[in-house]
Amino acid sequence: MSLAEFFKPRSVAIVGASHTPGKVGNVLVDNFSVFDGDVYYVNRDTSPINGKGVYESVTKIPGSVDLAVIAVPAKFVPGVISDCKKKGIGHVIIISSGFSETGQRGSDAEEEIRKILKQGKIRAIGPNVVGVLDTYSKVDTIFLPKNRMGRPGRGKISFITQSGAVGSTVLDFFSEEGIGVSKFISYGNAMDVNETDLLEYLGTDDRTRVIACYIEGIKSSGHDFMKTSSKVSMRKPIIVLKGGKTDRGTRAVSSHTGSLAGSSRIYSAAFKQSGIVEAADWEEMFDFSKAFAMQPLPKGDRLMIVTNGGGFGILAVDEAERRGLKLDDPSKASVKKISGMLPPYASIHNPIDLAADSNSEKYHEIVDTLASQYDGFVLISLLQVPSVEEGVAEVIVSLQKFGKPILAVAAGSGFTKKVARSIENGGVPVYPTPERAVRSFKALLDYSKFVSRHGK
Amino acid sequence: MSLAEFFKPRSVAIVGASHTPGKVGNVLVDNFSVFDGDVYYVNRDTSPINGKGVYESVTKIPGSVDLAVIAVPAKFVPGVISDCKKKGIGHVIIISSGFSETGQRGSDAEEEIRKILKQGKIRAIGPNVVGVLDTYSKVDTIFLPKNRMGRPGRGKISFITQSGAVGSTVLDFFSEEGIGVSKFISYGNAMDVNETDLLEYLGTDDRTRVIACYIEGIKSSGHDFMKTSSKVSMRKPIIVLKGGKTDRGTRAVSSHTGSLAGSSRIYSAAFKQSGIVEAADWEEMFDFSKAFAMQPLPKGDRLMIVTNGGGFGILAVDEAERRGLKLDDPSKASVKKISGMLPPYASIHNPIDLAADSNSEKYHEIVDTLASQYDGFVLISLLQVPSVEEGVAEVIVSLQKFGKPILAVAAGSGFTKKVARSIENGGVPVYPTPERAVRSFKALLDYSKFVSRHGK
Repeated sequence: MSLAEFFKPRSVAIVGASHTPGKVGNVLVDNFSVFDGDVYYVNRDTSPINGKGVYESVTKIPGSVDLAVIAVPAKFVPGVISDCKKKGIGHVIIISSGFSETGQRGSDAEEEIRKILKQGKIRAIGPNVVGVLDTYSKVDTIFLPKNRMGRPGRGKISFITQSGAVGSTVLDFFSEEGIGVSKFISYGNAMDVNETDLLEYLGTDDRTRVIACYIEGIKSSGHDFMKTSSKVSMRKPIIVLKGGKTDRGTRAVSSHTGSLAGSSRIYSAAFKQSGIVEAADWEEMFDFSKAFAMQPLPKGDRLMIVTNGGGFGILAVDEAERRGLKLDDPSKASVKKISGMLPPYASIHNPIDLAADSNSEKYHEIVDTLASQYDGFVLISLLQVPSVEEGVAEVIVSLQKFGKPILAVAAGSGFTKKVARSIENGGVPVYPTPERAVRSFKALLDYSKFVSRHGK
Repeated sequence: MSLAEFFKPRSVAIVGASHTPGKVGNVLVDNFSVFDGDVYYVNRDTSPINGKGVYESVTKIPGSVDLAVIAVPAKFVPGVISDCKKKGIGHVIIISSGFSETGQRGSDAEEEIRKILKQGKIRAIGPNVVGVLDTYSKVDTIFLPKNRMGRPGRGKISFITQSGAVGSTVLDFFSEEGIGVSKFISYGNAMDVNETDLLEYLGTDDRTRVIACYIEGIKSSGHDFMKTSSKVSMRKPIIVLKGGKTDRGTRAVSSHTGSLAGSSRIYSAAFKQSGIVEAADWEEMFDFSKAFAMQPLPKGDRLMIVTNGGGFGILAVDEAERRGLKLDDPSKASVKKISGMLPPYASIHNPIDLAADSNSEKYHEIVDTLASQYDGFVLISLLQVPSVEEGVAEVIVSLQKFGKPILAVAAGSGFTKKVARSIENGGVPVYPTPERAVRSFKALLDYSKFVSRHGK
């Protein structure tokens, strides 16, 4: 059955709804207060919540229910699922933990639930999850209160995560940086819906342009995963951070989500073959997601680095060379033209070092001159230097007109962060270190090569 | 001659002092308005600045001058240095750029200045520098206005940088994060005072406990550098980020500070032999500095990772294993004891996964139980989960009583950043990703091993 009702249900039952502040069931009540469809509260304690009636069981709800969100202790979950079956509810999100991640007894409980799901043809996300956030439909089962975890606005990135914690930190950072999200799914133990189902679904979702994933172990067959991700990769980039890449990590995975993490090398090879962009760590997952969501793909590998701080240019070049990127110098004609624009002590190679006293317009003049010679630009603009005005944000944003990927670097506190935010609001991702921007360009390039190699 | 007057002059002449807001000479006037000693303004235009008289030349200053800060166009610098010689000024900081970093003509100008310096026995920092910041004496020649670059408070880290831009971004981040600095020196072209002189000086400076460096090319002889850094390393850690590690990077270095960057492998080997902790990128330099400034060294390699988010624990373990760290499980007796403290679905290996519903006290109970079995702790506290209260900061800070290094991880926005700040104010460094905390522990360990291998 389709997964659509997880994201766009007409009616939702919150099982375990609570009026006690701080409880998971209370955060859910709060989250769904802005939901457009019908919302029903279910609890064995049927005293009203915020003046609204509470049902003893989903079976007592008069109207039809598309989705049940279940936040009751593990031992009550099988009973609730049976009720959902009776009620004919097609989709459930089981937030409760205490299942296969805890050992044999938990696995047995999952097995019991799985049977009921099959009989009822119910699709389930979970257990052991934070659940689903859809910024468009306002489904929000994330039981972390808003004063602890900011909710990002609407955007193009969808995020699939086996770990609720990894997922919630990413969302929290995105919310702070003003980076939008489309759908978020914490799928935990993946008793039913797994990463491959979600990839398949998001692959056809018009509101998803980039898929980021944190995966500990593939829950579908390896063959299905690769088949699906190869297909989806051709349409949109998939970024994967694999948890449990080492022996110790693999062991930790088994006690976390009950997955078999498998050999890291096998995973990496499979990812590569499927066009998946692998992130080496949490930070790369975050950085790459931003890059793909905001910028077009490079059509070739010629990168130009422009900087107003020599040291940062050098660090960027070092990273580019370590990553095998191509850093051609500008053509002789361009060098001549550019040297007329810059002070005599500026350095016009790759990087182009504008020198500290250059103003914002120089970035425009240089990219304008070089746009046809390069496939992408890393623009380093250190704002500690007063010669670069706040207007540099507008200048950098405007350079997107050339259709080449642009990644910006601005490192610092107060003023820098303010300008960086303006640049990102204009669609250009900003990184706090030169190395992170360069790695992100490399990710865009790798994916671009995959698509053109396998494209029509 | 000693370098002390750069940091603790009784009197300072600002050559190029200006009343025009935004000009370098004006920022210097502003910076020295809080300086305790005598300050003299020098400019060919002798109209008063802020009602205070301006001298045409340093030679006209009636009192003695310990330090001249020179911010005039390159072509005027030789004349100013001659005047300094006449006046008997022993120390100059030449901020002006346009020297050896720009080519042969600039190198010739440096040569000319070098001669005058020798004749006058003048020690010089620069040219092409941001200069010096001493948070204790309030010498501040950083010509970047305070609304663009925050000034960090007093602390234990001293920072030597060949690139002003790299230096100013680090200071700006430190100021935002509330991390203190002792001395900062941007030494640029190192016409006279070079990285080795500064290492030597900071090695004996009581207010410096950690030395961080950004170096593009060693300006002293390799032998001197290694001899000095080996000696200083035994007393305090030296962290080095080397710019220009690749072929392209080396070329960029030569047009930046006119240095020969040399082979990356030779550098890395020399660093290792001298006990220098090498940072792979900007972020590591920042992260390692924090760790060394705040925490004691581990006495062995047994690391315990405690987390309230499973995925973050796994990412930490993966990084630890990649870095060759030792992650023993707790002893059987400890496991038994700890299992009585945690819910049944918590996982007690290494990492110990407290599960999301544990409160702050669990960190205390676990570290208290395991302090004698481990040499260091990475404590991951994800604050999106409401069960961890704001008081977790106090708990984590208090765990320093065991004398083992503690590195914390807290990833997120608003609330998380507030708590992270409290933790750092209490002396425990906080990292936004598990990988960065683990790498920082590895840096502490590597240095600790060097010291005990070469110690008495």
